[in-house]
Amino acid sequence: MTSIHAPVSDLDIARAARIRPIEDIAAAAGIPAEALELHGRYKAKIDVAQLPRVPGKAPGKVVLVSAMSPTPAGEGKSTLTVGLADSLARAGQSVMVALREPSLGPVMGMKGGATGGGYSQVLPMEDINLHFTGDFHAITSANNTLMALVDNSIYQGNPLNIDPRRITFKRVLDVNDRSLRDVVIGLGGPTQGVPRQDGFDITVASEVMAAFCLATDLADLRNRLARMTIGYTYDRKPVTVADLGVEGALTLLLRDAVKPNLVQTIAGTPALVHGGPFANIAHGCNSVIATQTAQRLSDIVVTEAGFGADLGAEKFMDIKARAADVAPDAVVVVATIRALKMHGGVAKDNLREPDVDAVKRGVVNLRRHVANVRKFGITPVVAVNKFVTDTDEELEWLLSWCAAEGISAAVADIWGEGGGGPGGDDLAGKVLAALEAPRSFRHLYPLELPVEEKIRTIAQEIYGACDVEFSAAALRRLKEIQANGWDQLPVCMAKTQYSFSDDATRLGAPEGFTLHVRDLIPKTGAGFIVALTGAAMTMPGLPKEPGALRMNVDDDGGAVGLF
Amino acid sequence: MTSIHAPVSDLDIARAARIRPIEDIAAAAGIPAEALELHGRYKAKIDVAQLPRVPGKAPGKVVLVSAMSPTPAGEGKSTLTVGLADSLARAGQSVMVALREPSLGPVMGMKGGATGGGYSQVLPMEDINLHFTGDFHAITSANNTLMALVDNSIYQGNPLNIDPRRITFKRVLDVNDRSLRDVVIGLGGPTQGVPRQDGFDITVASEVMAAFCLATDLADLRNRLARMTIGYTYDRKPVTVADLGVEGALTLLLRDAVKPNLVQTIAGTPALVHGGPFANIAHGCNSVIATQTAQRLSDIVVTEAGFGADLGAEKFMDIKARAADVAPDAVVVVATIRALKMHGGVAKDNLREPDVDAVKRGVVNLRRHVANVRKFGITPVVAVNKFVTDTDEELEWLLSWCAAEGISAAVADIWGEGGGGPGGDDLAGKVLAALEAPRSFRHLYPLELPVEEKIRTIAQEIYGACDVEFSAAALRRLKEIQANGWDQLPVCMAKTQYSFSDDATRLGAPEGFTLHVRDLIPKTGAGFIVALTGAAMTMPGLPKEPGALRMNVDDDGGAVGLF
Repeated sequence: MTSIHAPVSDLDIARAARIRPIEDIAAAAGIPAEALELHGRYKAKIDVAQLPRVPGKAPGKVVLVSAMSPTPAGEGKSTLTVGLADSLARAGQSVMVALREPSLGPVMGMKGGATGGGYSQVLPMEDINLHFTGDFHAITSANNTLMALVDNSIYQGNPLNIDPRRITFKRVLDVNDRSLRDVVIGLGGPTQGVPRQDGFDITVASEVMAAFCLATDLADLRNRLARMTIGYTYDRKPVTVADLGVEGALTLLLRDAVKPNLVQTIAGTPALVHGGPFANIAHGCNSVIATQTAQRLSDIVVTEAGFGADLGAEKFMDIKARAADVAPDAVVVVATIRALKMHGGVAKDNLREPDVDAVKRGVVNLRRHVANVRKFGITPVVAVNKFVTDTDEELEWLLSWCAAEGISAAVADIWGEGGGGPGGDDLAGKVLAALEAPRSFRHLYPLELPVEEKIRTIAQEIYGACDVEFSAAALRRLKEIQANGWDQLPVCMAKTQYSFSDDATRLGAPEGFTLHVRDLIPKTGAGFIVALTGAAMTMPGLPKEPGALRMNVDDDGGAVGLF
Repeated sequence: MTSIHAPVSDLDIARAARIRPIEDIAAAAGIPAEALELHGRYKAKIDVAQLPRVPGKAPGKVVLVSAMSPTPAGEGKSTLTVGLADSLARAGQSVMVALREPSLGPVMGMKGGATGGGYSQVLPMEDINLHFTGDFHAITSANNTLMALVDNSIYQGNPLNIDPRRITFKRVLDVNDRSLRDVVIGLGGPTQGVPRQDGFDITVASEVMAAFCLATDLADLRNRLARMTIGYTYDRKPVTVADLGVEGALTLLLRDAVKPNLVQTIAGTPALVHGGPFANIAHGCNSVIATQTAQRLSDIVVTEAGFGADLGAEKFMDIKARAADVAPDAVVVVATIRALKMHGGVAKDNLREPDVDAVKRGVVNLRRHVANVRKFGITPVVAVNKFVTDTDEELEWLLSWCAAEGISAAVADIWGEGGGGPGGDDLAGKVLAALEAPRSFRHLYPLELPVEEKIRTIAQEIYGACDVEFSAAALRRLKEIQANGWDQLPVCMAKTQYSFSDDATRLGAPEGFTLHVRDLIPKTGAGFIVALTGAAMTMPGLPKEPGALRMNVDDDGGAVGLF
């Protein structure tokens, strides 16, 4: 994220920032000391049960930050989320940020954190990008304890009649480790286990993570964990965690992790950073518990969802907003001149060159995302995330186009100045206006629709597809889903974020295409059916020059080379 | 640990105990607020750099709690360690406990924690037995990040010429998972990695754990990590972490974990619980940093080492006390009537029956351990850990035998009363007297001896073996060790804890036996050569009825079924 902007790194800015004791941030946010579990000076978990009920306090309004179809470098959603919250605070609003926790695996792999950038970051970024408060480690533990119990059950006589060839749940690690994608385990003879094909995913791809992030409390989490399907019997019946009887143990392993983590932005706005399911095979937004806690504590919650609005926002509306009452009151669609140029046909290496015509050609992508947001009954606001390479002509054309289309829009100069400065004032004003607009939120589809029709609705209404084609495997899976009574679950699309279609090279606003559904994966604990279009990467690899090579600790214990 | 004693579980006792805010414990121990990083209300990490240097304060004396050769149920070393510290505090001494952190894997497997028992426990036991402050998760991350980097280096062209068949470092998980002992990774074709045979150990068996626990500070830790050997090149040259250039990244992942964890005993004695290397293939005691921090803060540090004195105490003297100036000033040898009976030939199921003759026969085991401790120039004190099934006749005979042999001894009734009661007063008095005795500590062998001779010295002097036999593999390895210049490292014996010999069934004080060294594993970062006698279990399995089946969380978030 940093390289585009400046010689000063995000880590430099973060370390130079004045950080306040987390007790002060908590006190200002109305969190009493008894609800605070400190983790050092600048992080705390919140014991939600200890929060006061304020009579008459309406739940905070939710501002969801989403984006147009991004470039591979990303359009700065996290940065914008932080900056917008800071700008709203600057405007005198009671506001909190709710963000995902970063995954440790990618931190070791490539440059680029998930805690915002420039002067719009959450602090302490070093901690948040490393182990933070251990939530992901707890999820890794719960996931892998479950799988040890599954393989142990098979080894100890297999009383549940589990077919080792039909185990669908994998072990996970929060490491980018391609060599664990496909493995054979249980080798070594009769005392070492039962051999079977297996694989590891990255922790953020664990269904435990998805269930964790959709649970409204510990009891709901236990129920979701109990419903997770780990595989099938020899006669093709699903086997759940409840069948193994270990949902209690898994919940115990997560009892502290479910408490949301309080940190702060550089400008001192309180931020809850909690949970982080993969955006490609899960729903890609922070925990329901964090969002709802922020709603209890503030008047406005600024949060984000992964990928573009075709994926992140749709899943927020149809999955997360069904798990709990967290439907957005406004949606910010982040656009960048760079991304518009890319959708206008400019090659990746030329995106820094002025090219207003390419912006004009690429705006069709933004237009469809804006129209999609309106289908949920929500007022969109376009936030143009300003980069130093943007020209006035490009920015002015974009704003005038938005005005002509009746789209509320503002340029946000949030990276360079931080949300504490005036660069986000205009956007904050537009968002406040949108929050005053009448809202008539609706889901895109009713749960009663068959899974096949839900997918078709999303493909046609949101993506602009003319048809959906199911592979033979997907058709078989649809029958299983019906037979097992899972047809009422919402759908979680796994699709490239770079195109509305399932072909990453079809930029802009493609039409007349067929969406290909390759396979369906029921996630009965998280509570959705993943629809795979194309390959889904669930365990990333490391690059040739991993970021780890540059990392170190200085004599004061400070991080070196972390972005 | 609990089942022998009472219908009240350790968890019940722990939850009923009055626990004090950790700031109060810290203040009483002379730890200033600026050195304290709170983890909730009852746990804190200590930033050692912020501790004041007290002019004229001598480092605290070290009392090492070890044991005779144990029964499979264990003789209560942790309980005795906690209880003795409480009793010393009751006697007005400035005292701290230093203990290992428990491993999460076994917690899910079987009943029995590692935080003491009865009224001699460290609190909060629920947290300590689960994720605690995340140290083991950080070690798991560092270990597995390293291995992802190793396999990535091979995948990205193998510039270090690593032979995938000769990688000696494994991935780890803090889970009892036998099906991961032997695996094949890197399957799936050219884009998924390079296939090779591999396996997972439990986290406590990681060399990162051993290096972590022997490091004196972060810089020393980085040096140790850099020296770790991950495998060999095709031309049989060792490949180290320094060759990969990632010791900085691994140190960064451990920068918070190296800070020792402050908790308290039920009686309110400050305890540092930090690190926990496996006792079978590592040295089995808490971190050097914790021991030395406790020495800075108190006049007496009570600590323990895993297994019997032939293993734990010997490694403490010859490995840990070489890494830092932490040699014991007194050694407590825990004995139980049960264990003496077992060494006297009584079957496991009959150990509760009164049998003074068996005690008399079994005392040869205790006698050899006591004599061994004296070989290090240290005064031993025998602590008879009292069980409810012990008869007065048995206890009295044992005490009179000790008196006749000139061995300082006391019965400690610490489980039932807790160290806060008078049950440990006698033992505390004996230990204080031993600390006043003249000490002339010496290591058992000089580092200059060849590895082969070091092993022979331990086998003959400590175990009572008449000879040592090296397998063909071990002989080859001895040559490699010499060729690579690792001959000056101390030896870490991996031997059954149940017998002085390498045959677990030879109880008492066997003589005239040959010790068989099957293989040698250089741990160049931890800084020792592991000598394997018999099989070394480095990844436990789960039992038929895992403890996880009984676990849950109650409505208040409290642990259920955790011991």
